[in-house]
Amino acid sequence: MRGVVMYGPGDVRVVDRAEPRIVEPTDAVIRLTATCICGSDLWPYRGAEPADGLPMGHEYVGVVEEVGSDVTTVKPGDFVIGSFVISDGTCDNCRAGYPSRCVHAEFVHGTIGTQSERARIPYADGTLVATPGMPDDALVPSLLAASDVLGTGWFAAVAAEAGPGKTVAVVGDGAVGLLGVLAARELGAERIIAMSRHADRQALAREFGATDIVTERDDAGVARIKELTDGLGAHSAIEAVGTQESMMQAIRSTRPGGHVGFVGVSHDVQLPGDEIFFSQVHLHGGPAPVRRFLPDLVDRIWNRQIDPGKVFDLELPLAEAAAGYTAMDERRAIKVLLRP
Amino acid sequence: MRGVVMYGPGDVRVVDRAEPRIVEPTDAVIRLTATCICGSDLWPYRGAEPADGLPMGHEYVGVVEEVGSDVTTVKPGDFVIGSFVISDGTCDNCRAGYPSRCVHAEFVHGTIGTQSERARIPYADGTLVATPGMPDDALVPSLLAASDVLGTGWFAAVAAEAGPGKTVAVVGDGAVGLLGVLAARELGAERIIAMSRHADRQALAREFGATDIVTERDDAGVARIKELTDGLGAHSAIEAVGTQESMMQAIRSTRPGGHVGFVGVSHDVQLPGDEIFFSQVHLHGGPAPVRRFLPDLVDRIWNRQIDPGKVFDLELPLAEAAAGYTAMDERRAIKVLLRP
Repeated sequence: MRGVVMYGPGDVRVVDRAEPRIVEPTDAVIRLTATCICGSDLWPYRGAEPADGLPMGHEYVGVVEEVGSDVTTVKPGDFVIGSFVISDGTCDNCRAGYPSRCVHAEFVHGTIGTQSERARIPYADGTLVATPGMPDDALVPSLLAASDVLGTGWFAAVAAEAGPGKTVAVVGDGAVGLLGVLAARELGAERIIAMSRHADRQALAREFGATDIVTERDDAGVARIKELTDGLGAHSAIEAVGTQESMMQAIRSTRPGGHVGFVGVSHDVQLPGDEIFFSQVHLHGGPAPVRRFLPDLVDRIWNRQIDPGKVFDLELPLAEAAAGYTAMDERRAIKVLLRP
Repeated sequence: MRGVVMYGPGDVRVVDRAEPRIVEPTDAVIRLTATCICGSDLWPYRGAEPADGLPMGHEYVGVVEEVGSDVTTVKPGDFVIGSFVISDGTCDNCRAGYPSRCVHAEFVHGTIGTQSERARIPYADGTLVATPGMPDDALVPSLLAASDVLGTGWFAAVAAEAGPGKTVAVVGDGAVGLLGVLAARELGAERIIAMSRHADRQALAREFGATDIVTERDDAGVARIKELTDGLGAHSAIEAVGTQESMMQAIRSTRPGGHVGFVGVSHDVQLPGDEIFFSQVHLHGGPAPVRRFLPDLVDRIWNRQIDPGKVFDLELPLAEAAAGYTAMDERRAIKVLLRP
């Protein structure tokens, strides 16, 4: 089959990869209907992580072709969505709501790689969720978004305890930040401040529920959030970048007792203990336990309550994946959907 | 009046200080019944913080002598306990449960200094709590403990979400860690693992509710906690030291989705972003919002439900404060009570 492999910074190619097959009785093999490029794929693309023959892609929707003998919740012909982390669904961590830290966790990125025609999904019962039926093509982007970018924005909003009466600041205007805005709105937040200096992203943030836009960054951005919140800071902050600057901006924008949900994959970040201590914020984040939220998110999408697929502003055939990486790297696209 | 002033590392003297007087209509002046030396007083004593004429002491119980014209909840003759942070009790942060970050917050340490005969307490209504009557002398140590060391251990246990069904690891066997054990027990924790290698502190930890003792530290300590918890780590960890080693030990001892409550005053700590990210623990801590807990803690002490005063294993007259500092510095005493 054809699939995307990264051979080094900026070097993304669509090549022949081995055909996926059932290995364990808990596996499923799916044919990808759609997949996409993640902001986190840009870390190795930009040389911030090693990439030497890395199978790319960890977001996926598709149709089950075959299942192992122990799989009971999905069957051939089902349309399914899965998390970007494989999870067995039965261990203590899964049952506590942290399938992203399943004792059998495996990142789809770099091993399975779903920027491809087909994929073997281990622990299919614990990882995949089937939709109620075959979706309209118009629903596919939104269902695909649930696989990571929506699920991650959702987790950030939950970790930030966004909810009624709360003011939520969102640091990062990539697809995850934008869907953090949508999640905060769905969770009932009163005021949602998107931090963005790009007109197109500001517009989408407003459409997803942002009530305010802050264009300033760093200290000036923090000062502006404080101005908007009686000098106290937001109740909640969503961090969706992963740099030192974005983490500190999120923490400093949050009032004492408030909550910071951080989901930007942390790169070269060191949190100063004394500042964290005296800030008195709550910190929680990490790789989103997307599988926890999938049934609810699929419901909301199926019922046309939310339309997270709007973050995809470029669609390409899988064969042109390299052009998709370039477009995201140059910020010409928010998020690129690939059709195998 | 006489009071303790620190003039430099190891240089603690009882000297004449100005008599406290009512300055603002929200002030009270109290006569100290008892005060004490805090583990955090050892930071400047050991040269880790500057101390050039620092009025010492921030824990206090005593009798109100005089109040300003706006004070309504305490009156002359009342026996009172207050937090180690002054709070107005009315601002948004106070009402949200974070009096330690009151918009009028002032640390008693270093300015007011309650290792003294008398003290002016600003915002008396928002800071002090009166007992139901004049306490027996036997209750005084426990009431004094509520002022910081119990309130801080309690906050750590609350921040760590200690409760029924939970396994709680406690890093630090000073008075705060020991009272974190007591708090975890009161909050209903199922299993409480005290990390200590001192027989006397282990014994007190057991008395306060510890079910297990771990003597190993650092990686070996973390490995031991994992062994005791099916390889997953504790649900909750209390950090009561404030060093890089203790913070990482607490974080690494906690399972994904678990909670770390950190109250050791952070010194030279840098939390690595990537490890915090992938740990998926919740982090919350800082200077304890003791005033939030004081009414409940006073009740529990008054009803003889808890006896936190047991952490005091040395009592000295105020005039001999220097000997108290030496005893704590040399770990010959867990905590020293001073009688003005």
